[in-house]
Amino acid sequence: MLRTLAVTQNGKLLENISLQNLTGPDIKWFWVDFDCPSPDEVELLDSYFHFHPLAIEDCMHLLQRPKIDHYDETHFFVIHSLHPETLKAEEIDFFLGPRGIVTFHLAPSLEIEEVWKQFQEAAIYQEKDHNYVAYSLLDKLVDTYFPILYRIEDELNELESEGEVNVDIQSMTEQVYDIRAELLRLRRTVIPTRDLLYRILSSDKIPGVKEQHAYFADIHDHLLKLTEMIESNREMTADLRDSYDSLRSNRMNAIMKTLTVITTIFMPLTFIAGIYGMNFEYMPELHTHWGYYGVMGVMLAVGFGMYFWFKRKGWFD
Amino acid sequence: MLRTLAVTQNGKLLENISLQNLTGPDIKWFWVDFDCPSPDEVELLDSYFHFHPLAIEDCMHLLQRPKIDHYDETHFFVIHSLHPETLKAEEIDFFLGPRGIVTFHLAPSLEIEEVWKQFQEAAIYQEKDHNYVAYSLLDKLVDTYFPILYRIEDELNELESEGEVNVDIQSMTEQVYDIRAELLRLRRTVIPTRDLLYRILSSDKIPGVKEQHAYFADIHDHLLKLTEMIESNREMTADLRDSYDSLRSNRMNAIMKTLTVITTIFMPLTFIAGIYGMNFEYMPELHTHWGYYGVMGVMLAVGFGMYFWFKRKGWFD
Amino acid sequence: MLRTLAVTQNGKLLENISLQNLTGPDIKWFWVDFDCPSPDEVELLDSYFHFHPLAIEDCMHLLQRPKIDHYDETHFFVIHSLHPETLKAEEIDFFLGPRGIVTFHLAPSLEIEEVWKQFQEAAIYQEKDHNYVAYSLLDKLVDTYFPILYRIEDELNELESEGEVNVDIQSMTEQVYDIRAELLRLRRTVIPTRDLLYRILSSDKIPGVKEQHAYFADIHDHLLKLTEMIESNREMTADLRDSYDSLRSNRMNAIMKTLTVITTIFMPLTFIAGIYGMNFEYMPELHTHWGYYGVMGVMLAVGFGMYFWFKRKGWFD
Amino acid sequence: MLRTLAVTQNGKLLENISLQNLTGPDIKWFWVDFDCPSPDEVELLDSYFHFHPLAIEDCMHLLQRPKIDHYDETHFFVIHSLHPETLKAEEIDFFLGPRGIVTFHLAPSLEIEEVWKQFQEAAIYQEKDHNYVAYSLLDKLVDTYFPILYRIEDELNELESEGEVNVDIQSMTEQVYDIRAELLRLRRTVIPTRDLLYRILSSDKIPGVKEQHAYFADIHDHLLKLTEMIESNREMTADLRDSYDSLRSNRMNAIMKTLTVITTIFMPLTFIAGIYGMNFEYMPELHTHWGYYGVMGVMLAVGFGMYFWFKRKGWFD
Amino acid sequence: MLRTLAVTQNGKLLENISLQNLTGPDIKWFWVDFDCPSPDEVELLDSYFHFHPLAIEDCMHLLQRPKIDHYDETHFFVIHSLHPETLKAEEIDFFLGPRGIVTFHLAPSLEIEEVWKQFQEAAIYQEKDHNYVAYSLLDKLVDTYFPILYRIEDELNELESEGEVNVDIQSMTEQVYDIRAELLRLRRTVIPTRDLLYRILSSDKIPGVKEQHAYFADIHDHLLKLTEMIESNREMTADLRDSYDSLRSNRMNAIMKTLTVITTIFMPLTFIAGIYGMNFEYMPELHTHWGYYGVMGVMLAVGFGMYFWFKRKGWFD
Ligand SMILES: [Mg+2]
Ligand SMILES: [Mg+2]
Ligand SMILES: [Mg+2]
Ligand SMILES: [Mg+2]
Ligand SMILES: [Mg+2]
Ligand SMILES: [Mg+2]
Ligand SMILES: [Mg+2]
Ligand SMILES: [Mg+2]
Ligand SMILES: [Mg+2]
Ligand SMILES: [Mg+2]
Ligand SMILES: [Mg+2]
Ligand SMILES: [Mg+2]
Ligand SMILES: [Mg+2]
Ligand SMILES: [Mg+2]
Ligand SMILES: [Mg+2]
Ligand SMILES: [Mg+2]
Ligand SMILES: [Mg+2]
Ligand SMILES: [Mg+2]
Ligand SMILES: [Mg+2]
Ligand SMILES: [Mg+2]
Ligand SMILES: [Mg+2]
Ligand SMILES: [Mg+2]
Ligand SMILES: [Mg+2]
Ligand SMILES: [Mg+2]
Ligand SMILES: [Mg+2]
Ligand SMILES: [Mg+2]
Ligand SMILES: [Mg+2]
Ligand SMILES: [Mg+2]
Ligand SMILES: [Mg+2]
Ligand SMILES: [Mg+2]
Ligand SMILES: [Mg+2]
Repeated sequence: MLRTLAVTQNGKLLENISLQNLTGPDIKWFWVDFDCPSPDEVELLDSYFHFHPLAIEDCMHLLQRPKIDHYDETHFFVIHSLHPETLKAEEIDFFLGPRGIVTFHLAPSLEIEEVWKQFQEAAIYQEKDHNYVAYSLLDKLVDTYFPILYRIEDELNELESEGEVNVDIQSMTEQVYDIRAELLRLRRTVIPTRDLLYRILSSDKIPGVKEQHAYFADIHDHLLKLTEMIESNREMTADLRDSYDSLRSNRMNAIMKTLTVITTIFMPLTFIAGIYGMNFEYMPELHTHWGYYGVMGVMLAVGFGMYFWFKRKGWFD
Repeated sequence: MLRTLAVTQNGKLLENISLQNLTGPDIKWFWVDFDCPSPDEVELLDSYFHFHPLAIEDCMHLLQRPKIDHYDETHFFVIHSLHPETLKAEEIDFFLGPRGIVTFHLAPSLEIEEVWKQFQEAAIYQEKDHNYVAYSLLDKLVDTYFPILYRIEDELNELESEGEVNVDIQSMTEQVYDIRAELLRLRRTVIPTRDLLYRILSSDKIPGVKEQHAYFADIHDHLLKLTEMIESNREMTADLRDSYDSLRSNRMNAIMKTLTVITTIFMPLTFIAGIYGMNFEYMPELHTHWGYYGVMGVMLAVGFGMYFWFKRKGWFD
Repeated sequence: MLRTLAVTQNGKLLENISLQNLTGPDIKWFWVDFDCPSPDEVELLDSYFHFHPLAIEDCMHLLQRPKIDHYDETHFFVIHSLHPETLKAEEIDFFLGPRGIVTFHLAPSLEIEEVWKQFQEAAIYQEKDHNYVAYSLLDKLVDTYFPILYRIEDELNELESEGEVNVDIQSMTEQVYDIRAELLRLRRTVIPTRDLLYRILSSDKIPGVKEQHAYFADIHDHLLKLTEMIESNREMTADLRDSYDSLRSNRMNAIMKTLTVITTIFMPLTFIAGIYGMNFEYMPELHTHWGYYGVMGVMLAVGFGMYFWFKRKGWFD
Repeated sequence: MLRTLAVTQNGKLLENISLQNLTGPDIKWFWVDFDCPSPDEVELLDSYFHFHPLAIEDCMHLLQRPKIDHYDETHFFVIHSLHPETLKAEEIDFFLGPRGIVTFHLAPSLEIEEVWKQFQEAAIYQEKDHNYVAYSLLDKLVDTYFPILYRIEDELNELESEGEVNVDIQSMTEQVYDIRAELLRLRRTVIPTRDLLYRILSSDKIPGVKEQHAYFADIHDHLLKLTEMIESNREMTADLRDSYDSLRSNRMNAIMKTLTVITTIFMPLTFIAGIYGMNFEYMPELHTHWGYYGVMGVMLAVGFGMYFWFKRKGWFD
Repeated sequence: MLRTLAVTQNGKLLENISLQNLTGPDIKWFWVDFDCPSPDEVELLDSYFHFHPLAIEDCMHLLQRPKIDHYDETHFFVIHSLHPETLKAEEIDFFLGPRGIVTFHLAPSLEIEEVWKQFQEAAIYQEKDHNYVAYSLLDKLVDTYFPILYRIEDELNELESEGEVNVDIQSMTEQVYDIRAELLRLRRTVIPTRDLLYRILSSDKIPGVKEQHAYFADIHDHLLKLTEMIESNREMTADLRDSYDSLRSNRMNAIMKTLTVITTIFMPLTFIAGIYGMNFEYMPELHTHWGYYGVMGVMLAVGFGMYFWFKRKGWFD
């Protein structure tokens, strides 16, 4: 689908006018949205708008990393829209020219929908222009990254605050690795976007930026905070993972202590019982009255001796 | 609550005068403090002071990272006040303009209270101005980070100096991970604040900095030291964590040695006893007089043999 | 083998003309390909083309890292062609001069073959020149790196999505280390190539780059994406490796639990049976009617007692 | 204690003259040393020399990191003197002005003592000036860092060269962690000092540096070498620590093999003996003549069978 | 020993002329080699050549890191010659001045010998000068680093390609750590040398570099490749080390499985045999004809039951 929005020199809004009417002298600025376009519509990028073939290639190809390319007067942006649950990235591209903006996306985009509606209000379309459309899209998209990171931080805090007794470490470990993978995926979008904003701010090629410097700096600021949160959370997951390793190793020690205590107490006792279970004809102890009780006493002594030896070594703490 | 402090051209201090009187030609400089302001008072940031909407948004939003934004003649600062125990960060914002300073905080702030009192003394309010208020706040806040780090270093030194015999490694490991988490939290405040000071020092946008360069450089210096201490302590905790892993693994070796020694000594003995416990009719040894004593001798020999073999292999060291 | 391709001032294509005819005033530009050259042909680099001895040395020596060297008007490029399966790198060199390009490779190259054919079409050889040959070779070669990385990512995703029950961790671990080694090898080609493109873009020495800046920037962009994918996948393999370590350690805990439970239940029971297997004459219990049943009851109680104790400690979860 | 040294325009040395005489036109340059000064003497920094309050604060406060601060014509240096055994840092501060140098230290300093004596020789005090005092102090102090690092390297080499048989890994591990902690402490002094020298070399604020550039570059060079040695030794300790982990884990494998071999050989044998120890009335084997010898043969076969099975699996290598 | 080589304005070679004759107007350029000089000869650095005392100090002191220092018209180089087996570094220093070069080494140097011979041929000494001596020495020395790294890579590849069955992991682990230590030592020479070349290339202080830029760039290129190979091999050894840890841990699992299977099968069986080895008078089973066979059947069932339970759990895979 392809839709247009144009604002005339005297501040009137024209919707869905044909592409041919966009370039008239009466048009102050325009916005064309390629919303899941058909192959025929895609053709227009080249045949009508004459965008650079490399930029058109980037629109159609698999997922690009967020970036900005400068082609003479037209600036080509690639941004990511992230699915809040799966973190799957969808590409949103736009061409920012001197007279208007052309957005392009192969999947429906909620963020574009919102900005489109916003620009149907007179207060907005009369005061702002296509440069502000670009800002609004960037701002909206970056704003959607925060809830994702907040959800991840919540999951992480929950993991951290769980008591360490009787927990299923293996399932917690897997959660930690899931979170690490999500942070990695998030970083692959956030870091190039941060660099993109930095390049917007430090370049003087894009005309709309100068007047709206504070606005773009605000997005850059958000991206700095996102980067720091991602790195900091990566380090927290590393610590969590290591602490689970320690806990696991501690439990192993406890298991081995149990095994060793039991073995060390009962092996000598069983051996003693084995001695008096031998069938030698001449074993004087067997024929005494006190033999059985004596051996039982010795066994008790050996058993408790072992027990107190372990106790003194601190194995039961 | 909203309170004001203004100094006239001839060095008189006016307290709690209304906002309307702040801009008169008689006022040399002023300080307005938004101390846990009501929604109506917050409105004044926009309606009376006409601060930039993005800066006002940052005041009201959740915790921002420490930063400085430049809006024409007004400079907007975000700084963190850290709770000494929980390390929870509270945001303190201020707007530094050519004629005065406006501070804003949603929670009560001890540091602002202190500076406020300090500026009620003639010696101060006559010689210094609103730029020095900004310096004093930054200095006070950064000074509060040191006791936190010193406490962490003390905890760490205590952990390090504890003997390694009979200690509860698991609880010490958990303490190490707590300290690591605290250092991480501290770093999220200190590093952006350090960058903020660096930007203050290397920019020439803020008029008060030039005359007080040494003062701001002193704060920057403190932040450099804090950063180094944090990084160095992070590395120390990593070493401590690894040394506990080694210790744990060492103890496991000791446990397994105990188990193996006991098993290796008693299993063959029990087996020998088992042989002479069999009920075969024709077992010549059973009927000899020396049989029992001979077997006991063999057992003793096997037992001590094993013992000395382990001793020679150094398992009892 | 040595082959030539030349385009005259009036747009005619000459193929396989002799080297002597390449420098005539009628020749607009030329391309000479040293395809697995004989030692005699290699001589021509020096005797006919007078290339710098260091560049010729680099052609003949073992594998060089991707790089660009500037010798007066001639620019010397070293690029890698990677075998899609073994990732073995073959070197492709070219000399880009003001009047033509000379390519050199000691192994047959599919990419050069393709570009050679492409330049036999009038539409191409009339519009483009030897600078575009250089671009096309770089573009083709870098494009071949993607399928390799996509295959690695697929292998990695397969590993990640495999269930964690009953898998052979050791073979999966080895796969992870194989992938890590492949990523390392890939990085040794991609990173110097990325730096090479960066130097092409930021230098003004190479005449063809300015007009085709967008084209070279597109290759640089591909290399940035490759770098990020490699680093990100390296981190994923590190996480995978660590998670296998955790899994392995978890299984060890399960094995030890089994051992300990069995030992702890049966050792005391065997000991009790051993007591009543002793041959003392005076053991009153042996002569009672209920003795056998009583001992069996005690054994059942001890066995189940141990079992429930472990159950309560959560060892069977 | 406070002592002075002044050189007159005609090259005469005046010692311990009063502060008031230092500023006369006859004095070419002077050196004042605050050696463990009394509170009254400390006052002079402010009342007589009028140094900047922030610099004076740094003198009195706890340990500062090595740094240089510029206050108009006076340059304030903080350097560390390290205790060769404990690596405890003592602060040595100096103020380098256009007419002289003022050194300040709260603990006695051997290095200052040495330089003081050196400057009592005519050959030195006539040719050199207070800038060379500054250089000499920096040089002396940095020279004292080398023996410390050489000692650490010796300890490390000794650890590395020790055979790996029968060593007490736990005590060696602890030595490695001690060395790591020392390197960390050393780095906290060396790195800021290196940065300080770099700033001296690349700044043109300090008048004496230009003429003595080679001298200051030599100290910087020493600090670069120290930094590299520290980092390289840190990596060596990391490798040593990891190799001890491997060794420990290897020993655990050996212990477990011993345990498993013994258990696997004797458990089945003890079981067989147990079978023929049962008291069933109808066990035909018990009543044959060859029964006992047959069972002993079976036991021998089982035992040796197990033994050779382990041997073939390579457990005894 | 001290030897000289001088070339006259009309291209004649003078060997072993005295130092006094080196500075005559007839001499175009000269080379003086201090080959394991005696203390008297060392004196000449100062008394005859008047080199800077700091440079002379560096010649005599213990091993310096590779570096370049500029003293007016003389440039002082420190380079390392590495022993191919032990990787022990020997220092080779040279002073490059406007009229000649002075080399200095306390140990005999094969590389200097080679270059010396090379410059005795007319073709060389007539066309090239002392600047080319400097280049040749650098080139020769850096070329000797490659065989060392190739040998290390070969050792590493051999380790990698060894099958993972029945190998002695501990000895392989030690080999890996030896290789890591060698790479570390190599890096301590290569990285400062790379920086030194970079400084030569980017500085315009050294007169000979401009004309021979391509030659020095070629050495820099070699050093870049060496650096990359070292880093890449360090990462490979890290992976190898980790994979041995995994393998070791896997073997431990296999050992523990063997132990647990044996224990779990035989403990219950031994217990059953123990029950019927008790000497109670009233144990009805003992007196039945089928008792013995029944118990043997139960034992078989228990044994095989355990066996198949482990089989189903996949412990025998
Ligand atoms: Mg696309
Ligand atoms: Mg936003
Ligand atoms: Mg916003
Ligand atoms: Mg998973
Ligand atoms: Mg999730
Ligand atoms: Mg904001
Ligand atoms: Mg806020
Ligand atoms: Mg302060
Ligand atoms: Mg202070
Ligand atoms: Mg705490
Ligand atoms: Mg200070
Ligand atoms: Mg570890
Ligand atoms: Mg080659
Ligand atoms: Mg391409
Ligand atoms: Mg392409
Ligand atoms: Mg392999
Ligand atoms: Mg593969
Ligand atoms: Mg592209
Ligand atoms: Mg690990
Ligand atoms: Mg101090
Ligand atoms: Mg020195
Ligand atoms: Mg010296
Ligand atoms: Mg210790
Ligand atoms: Mg020590
Ligand atoms: Mg030196
Ligand atoms: Mg030397
Ligand atoms: Mg070479
Ligand atoms: Mg060469
Ligand atoms: Mg070794
Ligand atoms: Mg070796
Ligand atoms: Mg080369």
